[in-house]
Amino acid sequence: MIIQIAKDISKKDKDQLIEKLNHIQYKGNEVHTQFGNYMIAVGKKEFDIRAVGTLPGVIDIHRVSDNYKLVSKKWKVNDTVIDLGDGVTIGADDIALMAGPCSIESEEQIESTILHLKEIGIKIMRGGVYKPRSSPYSFRGLGMDGLRLWHEAAKRHSIKIITEVMMVEQIDEMLPYVDIFQVGARNSQNFNLLDALGKIDKPILLKRGISGTIEELLQGAEYIFSNGNEKIMLCERGIRSYETAYRNTFDINSIAILKEKSHLPVIADPSHGVGIRQYVEPVALASILAGADGVIAEVHTVPEKAFSDGQQTLDYGQSKNLFNKLRMTWELKKEMDRM
Amino acid sequence: MIIQIAKDISKKDKDQLIEKLNHIQYKGNEVHTQFGNYMIAVGKKEFDIRAVGTLPGVIDIHRVSDNYKLVSKKWKVNDTVIDLGDGVTIGADDIALMAGPCSIESEEQIESTILHLKEIGIKIMRGGVYKPRSSPYSFRGLGMDGLRLWHEAAKRHSIKIITEVMMVEQIDEMLPYVDIFQVGARNSQNFNLLDALGKIDKPILLKRGISGTIEELLQGAEYIFSNGNEKIMLCERGIRSYETAYRNTFDINSIAILKEKSHLPVIADPSHGVGIRQYVEPVALASILAGADGVIAEVHTVPEKAFSDGQQTLDYGQSKNLFNKLRMTWELKKEMDRM
Amino acid sequence: MIIQIAKDISKKDKDQLIEKLNHIQYKGNEVHTQFGNYMIAVGKKEFDIRAVGTLPGVIDIHRVSDNYKLVSKKWKVNDTVIDLGDGVTIGADDIALMAGPCSIESEEQIESTILHLKEIGIKIMRGGVYKPRSSPYSFRGLGMDGLRLWHEAAKRHSIKIITEVMMVEQIDEMLPYVDIFQVGARNSQNFNLLDALGKIDKPILLKRGISGTIEELLQGAEYIFSNGNEKIMLCERGIRSYETAYRNTFDINSIAILKEKSHLPVIADPSHGVGIRQYVEPVALASILAGADGVIAEVHTVPEKAFSDGQQTLDYGQSKNLFNKLRMTWELKKEMDRM
Amino acid sequence: MIIQIAKDISKKDKDQLIEKLNHIQYKGNEVHTQFGNYMIAVGKKEFDIRAVGTLPGVIDIHRVSDNYKLVSKKWKVNDTVIDLGDGVTIGADDIALMAGPCSIESEEQIESTILHLKEIGIKIMRGGVYKPRSSPYSFRGLGMDGLRLWHEAAKRHSIKIITEVMMVEQIDEMLPYVDIFQVGARNSQNFNLLDALGKIDKPILLKRGISGTIEELLQGAEYIFSNGNEKIMLCERGIRSYETAYRNTFDINSIAILKEKSHLPVIADPSHGVGIRQYVEPVALASILAGADGVIAEVHTVPEKAFSDGQQTLDYGQSKNLFNKLRMTWELKKEMDRM
Repeated sequence: MIIQIAKDISKKDKDQLIEKLNHIQYKGNEVHTQFGNYMIAVGKKEFDIRAVGTLPGVIDIHRVSDNYKLVSKKWKVNDTVIDLGDGVTIGADDIALMAGPCSIESEEQIESTILHLKEIGIKIMRGGVYKPRSSPYSFRGLGMDGLRLWHEAAKRHSIKIITEVMMVEQIDEMLPYVDIFQVGARNSQNFNLLDALGKIDKPILLKRGISGTIEELLQGAEYIFSNGNEKIMLCERGIRSYETAYRNTFDINSIAILKEKSHLPVIADPSHGVGIRQYVEPVALASILAGADGVIAEVHTVPEKAFSDGQQTLDYGQSKNLFNKLRMTWELKKEMDRM
Repeated sequence: MIIQIAKDISKKDKDQLIEKLNHIQYKGNEVHTQFGNYMIAVGKKEFDIRAVGTLPGVIDIHRVSDNYKLVSKKWKVNDTVIDLGDGVTIGADDIALMAGPCSIESEEQIESTILHLKEIGIKIMRGGVYKPRSSPYSFRGLGMDGLRLWHEAAKRHSIKIITEVMMVEQIDEMLPYVDIFQVGARNSQNFNLLDALGKIDKPILLKRGISGTIEELLQGAEYIFSNGNEKIMLCERGIRSYETAYRNTFDINSIAILKEKSHLPVIADPSHGVGIRQYVEPVALASILAGADGVIAEVHTVPEKAFSDGQQTLDYGQSKNLFNKLRMTWELKKEMDRM
Repeated sequence: MIIQIAKDISKKDKDQLIEKLNHIQYKGNEVHTQFGNYMIAVGKKEFDIRAVGTLPGVIDIHRVSDNYKLVSKKWKVNDTVIDLGDGVTIGADDIALMAGPCSIESEEQIESTILHLKEIGIKIMRGGVYKPRSSPYSFRGLGMDGLRLWHEAAKRHSIKIITEVMMVEQIDEMLPYVDIFQVGARNSQNFNLLDALGKIDKPILLKRGISGTIEELLQGAEYIFSNGNEKIMLCERGIRSYETAYRNTFDINSIAILKEKSHLPVIADPSHGVGIRQYVEPVALASILAGADGVIAEVHTVPEKAFSDGQQTLDYGQSKNLFNKLRMTWELKKEMDRM
Repeated sequence: MIIQIAKDISKKDKDQLIEKLNHIQYKGNEVHTQFGNYMIAVGKKEFDIRAVGTLPGVIDIHRVSDNYKLVSKKWKVNDTVIDLGDGVTIGADDIALMAGPCSIESEEQIESTILHLKEIGIKIMRGGVYKPRSSPYSFRGLGMDGLRLWHEAAKRHSIKIITEVMMVEQIDEMLPYVDIFQVGARNSQNFNLLDALGKIDKPILLKRGISGTIEELLQGAEYIFSNGNEKIMLCERGIRSYETAYRNTFDINSIAILKEKSHLPVIADPSHGVGIRQYVEPVALASILAGADGVIAEVHTVPEKAFSDGQQTLDYGQSKNLFNKLRMTWELKKEMDRM
């Protein structure tokens, strides 16, 4: 049950609402986001929602039977649009495109990547400064030094930054330099991190877990939303299966389902989704017709020399082709949607 | 190692070839198909292929390191085109479209379906007369009676028939009535069936196993090819995963990979691939941009009343929309391929 | 609904029963096995079972809500015991042990294996004469010639034979030489084969599919039973998962569950279940405490030289140790069951 | 490459060692644990290890080709024993047994559980005070208040405490009250948490990820070890598969493999491993014969009223039976190991 409450609800009215909920054995969870105030009421009994809906201070009330509430389309039917400023939006009329290296490696690499992105019209650059690695002896990223270097260059060129945050303690330090915080697959159910990211006012791109279900992804987003941050993107990046011909099984079904179940934008990550360079393009194009609002792809000056994920990274020529075709596909998708 | 041999190779030359192979500890498997004669030589040692390539009666020789040989693109770089007659081809310039009910149920249903397919320009009708069912107490199809009824109507309307064959003993009886034999996911590694289908001259659509690997699918096709039948289509129909939000995980990656590894046409089955009606369209469209040569989809007059698979079956209106959009997508794909 | 009917039910009484079932919109499936006559009634409506149970010719009636009926313990609470003759039983007080090579290779190999089995007290020998192989170019077994050789030796030494049957056409020819027919994982849902094996009076060992569910395995057994053959063993042989550290994921849970859901004996196949020689013993021992009635294991004179599956095959010394420990484990299991 | 270095190695000798490693293009990672000083050298070139092994200050040197080093049995062949004090050890001659509720709920529950555990001879109590939950609206544990209550009672009764830690910030506060820190499946690759737990001197029980590989589990342990903490237990708790008849697929193979690959103790969690009460016992017993050093199981006064995981929780009677049988199984295992 989602109860939208007035921003200026009086303490008396709120107490009355809580008392009413307790009376019918529902537990109320207050949520204050950038855009609204809600009471999420969880309980088991059936009851007449009008008895609550007509209380003073209550604006609206919706039954949501899913295990996720605020991120469900059953409640909010209009698609969420995330505004990054400077005319860059996600989930709106334009396809959302993000590209860049797996790891931020050097000033030269940053500069070269930015020039390439600008040339092909990409306004959001990806890159890792904190890298989750299976082995403790692998390169784990340049950390804050890398992020500051990157931010300086990105600002100069009006490029937005998306990068992964791995732990609660990193958030504050990273905050001034980051436009979108990415939560990686391994942290998809790191609930303390999700709680903390719900308390800031920056967009979050939440990746599906390595073998996360669609419902778990939506519940992860619910953590962020219910802590106060409505600016969330869902990211399909492939799941673990028995097939060894590629890295992950890109779940094209999930894109179609997420778009129907949730109002949040959905971003496809074909680089991890298939994990082999020559298949990134077909999978990326497919994701748009399945309903994705955009694509995030790994691009590097010399993929073979990348510090990590080189085998799934595009070079500049491939990247230019891909993004051209993505835009053509987007046009077709819009045309078909109007039919 | 694939050694293409002359159709009129003399016994002496063939014996010499076999002797040569034995000498280098390779085992030769002779293959005679509709289109050529081959010797598939399997062994472990490295050797100078010219020593074999220059023997009399040998036309060509190719090293193929994959576990599948004749279906590999390493050997035959041109895509295979399957001609069904009457101008219906698969793997050529046109998108291959097949539609129809899960089960053939009645004369009325057949007639209605054919009229619908003709209206929307589909020339190949799918339908099951032998149905593999998990429970022995479920409806198992109308059998040969259904097939004969169907064939009579299809012939009248110039519609091609694709239907599933489940066992070797059914082949002969079905042969006069069928244009494409389908091998279902559960029989994907029924090697005796594949052997037998390799000995007839009718196209085969081979579905990937319920949890079959891409390599197993190609090796299954190798069974058919090496028995003499080159007319094979590969079909991606989703794989079994932990996700319960849908029926199967449609493996979009496999489409891109199959198209690169093999010269055989690839058909997408979005109906089984996602298993829920409203997601069939996005998955089908996606499959084309991933590289599929065509789509097979379940369509029924009244999906809710279908004897089987109703929940993933489109009605006529949805079907018309889908096939329109598939053709638009095909146009875009062709345009992008020319870039 | 399982309705046990008298062997000598009159035609009139049977017609009355069928009429009654039709009246309540149930479909009756008559089943005649070696041990009883049944009517399996499938329908949706709730009704008073006494109205059927008191009809003449009806001995007993059981509601079974599972998708499998005759193999369910809800109906038959006593464990099924399969008698192979000569004092060899499966599912009774003794642990059932089967061993032998993956493939029957030669007379010498047969003789040596039999002597080894006799020395360590194993009375059932496994071995393949028809081998399902992923590649058409692999060794596919010695066929009937191998089986006849084997049978001659086995008869001489009073050893029982279990071997895989791959297609309906093979059954008649194999019948005189085989004590237990094995259905392999790839044929677990080859329903025509299951139908045919239900029509003979020889025990069947049915393997779980490569990614078969527990319910599918039980429904596969239902095919055999409902065609007339009650002599069925269920075999857990590992399932396909994402883990690549071994061949298959032996599903120890399934053993416990199958024993609770069904009255049929359960046999563990640790050789395929883990696929690496040194882990066969721990997995085999574990299976007994999980509830397995016996174990089938691959054993070879010189595992490294086996035509197939050598890496998961035990040598004679390892085999002797394993079967000793299995018997010790069996004793503990019986002791704990009495507690 | 693991280079064991003298505790009192001189700066000069260490510099010489590092220089030598750099010279052969190896990167050295210094590790100081409770028990030793090591240099983990990672590189690609083959070289003569004697050239390093004979340097001053170097005690020993081992080539370890696995992706994990310090946790590998290739280096340390003797099994690790973890001493919790008061005669409680893990990985030694006695079976390690841990039991208790999923969540710590109240003082009464704590007291009752402790009395039960003491009665049946269990010396380590499990229980969650920080609970990872899929939904933000579920009960998330009593936190530090619960832990303090629990600790007070546990101390009084000489019971050891194992409980889950979810984030770096919780460690310091929990430290005085906890005997074993548990890392849950969802945090199995929360590398910052693993780093931090490597810097304390308390035993860690590391659970395998929800779909973690065996190698990822060992690499996770390597994170802890390489940060300085050698006191690690590995925990198999079932993996995610397509099977829906139970909660997780308990991977019995992994127990056998982990025991062979690593010197660390392995604990089985049959409660999560199968997720249904009546199958916990068979799975638990099986795990011992597969090689587990102990078992952790969920036990509750009234499982049906447990705040979480009730369906997989044993009552006291079941718990008493289970632990009796586990000890009998342990005796058999020891006897067979001596054979």
